[in-house]
Amino acid sequence: MRVGIIGSGLQCRRRAPVLREWPDTDLVVIASRHADHARRAAEQFGCEWSDDWHSVVQRDDLDVILVCTPPGVHAEMTIAALEAGKHVLCEKPLTRTLEEAQRVVEVWRRSGRVLKCGFNHRHHPAIGEAYRLVQSGRIGRPFIGRCRYGICGRPGYENEWRADPQQAAGGQFIEQGIHAVDLLRWFLGEVSEVYCMTAIHYFHKQPLEDNGMALLRFRDGATAQIHASLTQWKNLFSFEIYGEDGYVAVEGLGASYGTERLIVGRRDFTAPFQETVTEYRGADRSWREEWKEFVTAIREGRDPMGSGEDGAAAMRIALAAYEAERSGRVVRL
Amino acid sequence: MRVGIIGSGLQCRRRAPVLREWPDTDLVVIASRHADHARRAAEQFGCEWSDDWHSVVQRDDLDVILVCTPPGVHAEMTIAALEAGKHVLCEKPLTRTLEEAQRVVEVWRRSGRVLKCGFNHRHHPAIGEAYRLVQSGRIGRPFIGRCRYGICGRPGYENEWRADPQQAAGGQFIEQGIHAVDLLRWFLGEVSEVYCMTAIHYFHKQPLEDNGMALLRFRDGATAQIHASLTQWKNLFSFEIYGEDGYVAVEGLGASYGTERLIVGRRDFTAPFQETVTEYRGADRSWREEWKEFVTAIREGRDPMGSGEDGAAAMRIALAAYEAERSGRVVRL
Amino acid sequence: MRVGIIGSGLQCRRRAPVLREWPDTDLVVIASRHADHARRAAEQFGCEWSDDWHSVVQRDDLDVILVCTPPGVHAEMTIAALEAGKHVLCEKPLTRTLEEAQRVVEVWRRSGRVLKCGFNHRHHPAIGEAYRLVQSGRIGRPFIGRCRYGICGRPGYENEWRADPQQAAGGQFIEQGIHAVDLLRWFLGEVSEVYCMTAIHYFHKQPLEDNGMALLRFRDGATAQIHASLTQWKNLFSFEIYGEDGYVAVEGLGASYGTERLIVGRRDFTAPFQETVTEYRGADRSWREEWKEFVTAIREGRDPMGSGEDGAAAMRIALAAYEAERSGRVVRL
Amino acid sequence: MRVGIIGSGLQCRRRAPVLREWPDTDLVVIASRHADHARRAAEQFGCEWSDDWHSVVQRDDLDVILVCTPPGVHAEMTIAALEAGKHVLCEKPLTRTLEEAQRVVEVWRRSGRVLKCGFNHRHHPAIGEAYRLVQSGRIGRPFIGRCRYGICGRPGYENEWRADPQQAAGGQFIEQGIHAVDLLRWFLGEVSEVYCMTAIHYFHKQPLEDNGMALLRFRDGATAQIHASLTQWKNLFSFEIYGEDGYVAVEGLGASYGTERLIVGRRDFTAPFQETVTEYRGADRSWREEWKEFVTAIREGRDPMGSGEDGAAAMRIALAAYEAERSGRVVRL
Repeated sequence: MRVGIIGSGLQCRRRAPVLREWPDTDLVVIASRHADHARRAAEQFGCEWSDDWHSVVQRDDLDVILVCTPPGVHAEMTIAALEAGKHVLCEKPLTRTLEEAQRVVEVWRRSGRVLKCGFNHRHHPAIGEAYRLVQSGRIGRPFIGRCRYGICGRPGYENEWRADPQQAAGGQFIEQGIHAVDLLRWFLGEVSEVYCMTAIHYFHKQPLEDNGMALLRFRDGATAQIHASLTQWKNLFSFEIYGEDGYVAVEGLGASYGTERLIVGRRDFTAPFQETVTEYRGADRSWREEWKEFVTAIREGRDPMGSGEDGAAAMRIALAAYEAERSGRVVRL
Repeated sequence: MRVGIIGSGLQCRRRAPVLREWPDTDLVVIASRHADHARRAAEQFGCEWSDDWHSVVQRDDLDVILVCTPPGVHAEMTIAALEAGKHVLCEKPLTRTLEEAQRVVEVWRRSGRVLKCGFNHRHHPAIGEAYRLVQSGRIGRPFIGRCRYGICGRPGYENEWRADPQQAAGGQFIEQGIHAVDLLRWFLGEVSEVYCMTAIHYFHKQPLEDNGMALLRFRDGATAQIHASLTQWKNLFSFEIYGEDGYVAVEGLGASYGTERLIVGRRDFTAPFQETVTEYRGADRSWREEWKEFVTAIREGRDPMGSGEDGAAAMRIALAAYEAERSGRVVRL
Repeated sequence: MRVGIIGSGLQCRRRAPVLREWPDTDLVVIASRHADHARRAAEQFGCEWSDDWHSVVQRDDLDVILVCTPPGVHAEMTIAALEAGKHVLCEKPLTRTLEEAQRVVEVWRRSGRVLKCGFNHRHHPAIGEAYRLVQSGRIGRPFIGRCRYGICGRPGYENEWRADPQQAAGGQFIEQGIHAVDLLRWFLGEVSEVYCMTAIHYFHKQPLEDNGMALLRFRDGATAQIHASLTQWKNLFSFEIYGEDGYVAVEGLGASYGTERLIVGRRDFTAPFQETVTEYRGADRSWREEWKEFVTAIREGRDPMGSGEDGAAAMRIALAAYEAERSGRVVRL
Repeated sequence: MRVGIIGSGLQCRRRAPVLREWPDTDLVVIASRHADHARRAAEQFGCEWSDDWHSVVQRDDLDVILVCTPPGVHAEMTIAALEAGKHVLCEKPLTRTLEEAQRVVEVWRRSGRVLKCGFNHRHHPAIGEAYRLVQSGRIGRPFIGRCRYGICGRPGYENEWRADPQQAAGGQFIEQGIHAVDLLRWFLGEVSEVYCMTAIHYFHKQPLEDNGMALLRFRDGATAQIHASLTQWKNLFSFEIYGEDGYVAVEGLGASYGTERLIVGRRDFTAPFQETVTEYRGADRSWREEWKEFVTAIREGRDPMGSGEDGAAAMRIALAAYEAERSGRVVRL
């Protein structure tokens, strides 16, 4: 498979090495509207470059497009690539607005191609294993979710595209929190109610929330809470699911989030507390696992895990959370 | 000071040894409507017993009454004791209803006596130290609070008074969560908005929620989240406050909640993550510290930390949370 | 069973409540050569007192004697009690010298009574469970032992009996380290070789080592290391056994040593590291479990776990370690 | 600076990327007696290759030689490179025998070049910071050292050069343990006494110890213990130094040893236990820091940290430990 990447920033640099090392995928071209950025990235990864993404998505010699740009242009690029017959892996959040997300899904369904949303967290080994355990019934019916996901922001954050409402889909609640939304939906099913509180607590030079908390109720009765934070001065990822017979928790994501660990416990009203802890030491493997899933889905002609539909569903929930806060009323989905 | 205790259950057994060991306080009598319970407790602690709490609060030779009964009778007993000129330490939650709480506060203010609500958590050494650090400006303006507080419920829970709406002020959200509400209010100030989701996830044989989650906004702009759970299969107390310049967290409360630890970190955009961790190993000292504060407040003729007013304020917030869920609208206080 | 305790210090105060709460054992008398100490302890625990231990061990109405004095008088008291037909629980180390230990064992064997050495560590729940797992073959043949056991010493240590060579059997290596020796011997079998290095690193006002490290080789080939320290500024108990197929470790002993935890892992050359962690939160239960074993052994007329023989064997190893250091040669046992 | 690497195995692959990314150092050639190994590594790193290390060390266009081969050929290669006027970074242990180590040091001292031994552990950020703290007096006079360093061995270990006495300087005690020896000597000074016990506990198909434990006494009075293990089924690095006023500890080394953490505590006879914990999350930076030190030492014409002399001193201690075990007598240095 021959691949073009649009965007030459952090995500490009994360994904390019993975696809180059993959047996059957070749990195052909990197596009960026900044010609020098594109050229520098292309030199690093030994491929062509372009400052015109439109022409790239039209190239006949490409099978796959990776959209690694800010959300504001996701929809436009993804739609163009799908319409040009490419399979697309588009970063999260899928788009900037719900309307865009719906349009992307429509085009995708007509296209017959594979569309994956960049929910790499589903591919962290501890999270994947947690999911398999829950599916296997290990903790009984799951009914509680908690996700605390935060990062220590950076000086100059106000100059990033993340702080620009025209480019970002929202503040930290959607930028980082969309992973929490996606994971909770994956584990607990469709959401029926959401409420939310957001705030700009520290990064006052920009207009988007740096902290967002939400409560969710699910159709099957589960309840969950999320906190996404840009003022988590020590990076934290903590994801917990409780069920009738036990619980699973994932702490850490490797790298700056600390060793990724899966913790499994069971309900026992009499024994001392006991947990099984698995450590996934070493580098973050999620990018590689996500690529594998995407490529395999293309080969098998099926929807990938974390599909365009999942991307749109997470958007719907996250934007409903904002709407709940605006209106002061719980939003029912 | 001569002390009578009403109620002969767990809280009586926790508080009686503390006050007996205290230099200037004597346990004189334990009252319970179950004569045999009262007698057994009195034998254990070497004091008188009674099955008539009314006569106990009227005794001229008592200075202090401890109300260690279920919330449904707190107001009645506390009011009677205050009107009889006694100082009162009443277990949390202060009362079963907001109306009762307001009445208790009125009687108390007229009485000129000391009324303390049994918010022993303020007296845990790690929590107290965290509070002093925040007050001293160590973490700058505090703006985020998180509290996860849960316990592994028990078979037969449905037979406890906690499961009876006539005796309890609410389910787990208020029974255990009232501590979280009180602590967050202590650290972050008055609450301006609250939303909540509760559920009966596991303990279906009784009518009160076994899980409650809330979002709170404070007058000074801080936001916070709470989860109180009876299905936390491994007992957990985690209380975190984030501010402009750092954070404090308390994990554990000793005994079945694990070693009590205070964690302090600072915002540093460049250095590796660093935390100072203090362990308060050994037995739970909060009961002794709370008793000390109560006795000292009596001696000094001042309001104690965690006064009747604090007890009523926490009730107001917790009951507003229920109201928010019922109405589907955020409640503004 | 009617019990007398000789010694009114810390161990008396630890053991007296346990035996009083036990269904079939009564505390009859506490003896100390300091009449006022004896009287005060007796008042606290509601029993008789004496300042003449000789007469106590001769009392016909006692079945059991607890020797809770410094090691220098263990042999004399234990022998007198055994010869008077009493069952004896004697604190560790069993005696001050090896000759005394051998004499105690001889008298004991002739007496037909039960003699237990106060190796309460065998009765910590995590250690007991670790032992059962190793016995069951869970980690295959065990071949490595490590024990780090240290405490933060106290100002004025030089004034304690522990710092007096006429009362203590040795310094920290034997005082605290004898538990490590006993546990390693319990788990790994008889010792064949030992070497040791001790030092006075901090507590210079007294003549006994405040740190001792040893290497041990066992008849079955296992090797082990011990470090006993009085300069472990944060109290530590860490006991690890590795075998062909896995390992068990115990961290903490409750109270000032932190939550007692059992950690179990297995050898797996391919999977990510996985451990099962059991937490024994709450108070130290070893004293109660040890009492249960002692009483049961008396009732069943059998040797208790941690018998007089075990006490003598641990002495032999610990004193051989000192001898190795003195001579600069490994000591073969 | 122009660099040639001898050896194309794991260490070559670790060091090559570091020196390529370094501003002033160029990787020119990789040599291996296996031509295909050399060629493959050279292709990966974009440099020349050779199957004749003799000719490589003679090249006039090279300034630096890295010796990344098994210890059995370290001395020969290092001496040839030094005599050809190159600066040398040689992997640990410096050589296979003490005689070789002494010869290497002699040649080095005559050569006027820089010789560094590959003690990368000194360059781990937590270890470096611990060293600075100890040097600054933070823990007072240091007097206790402990190092547990172990790895989960591999099936087929018997086929590695590590299992071949002609290529390795010893078993696990020297292969991995030499880092512990070097670090303890760095922190605590020169060693005066050593004793040791080694064993083949699990990897029986080869002749070298898979576990080695040692006791060390230092000239300044400190004592220390080491355990190096190939049967540490969960990789562990734990390095602890205790002094009069406190302690420093390093846990983890990143990657398969888990997040690298620096723990600092102080002696306080009255306060609750308190530690400051710094986490160095993310990739292992020691290789880069070591390269920086080597290059800087060359530029400044000084001995590097972890010089040839340090390499020889560590060998002397480690081989004395073996001698102690053989003779059954402590070895005094």
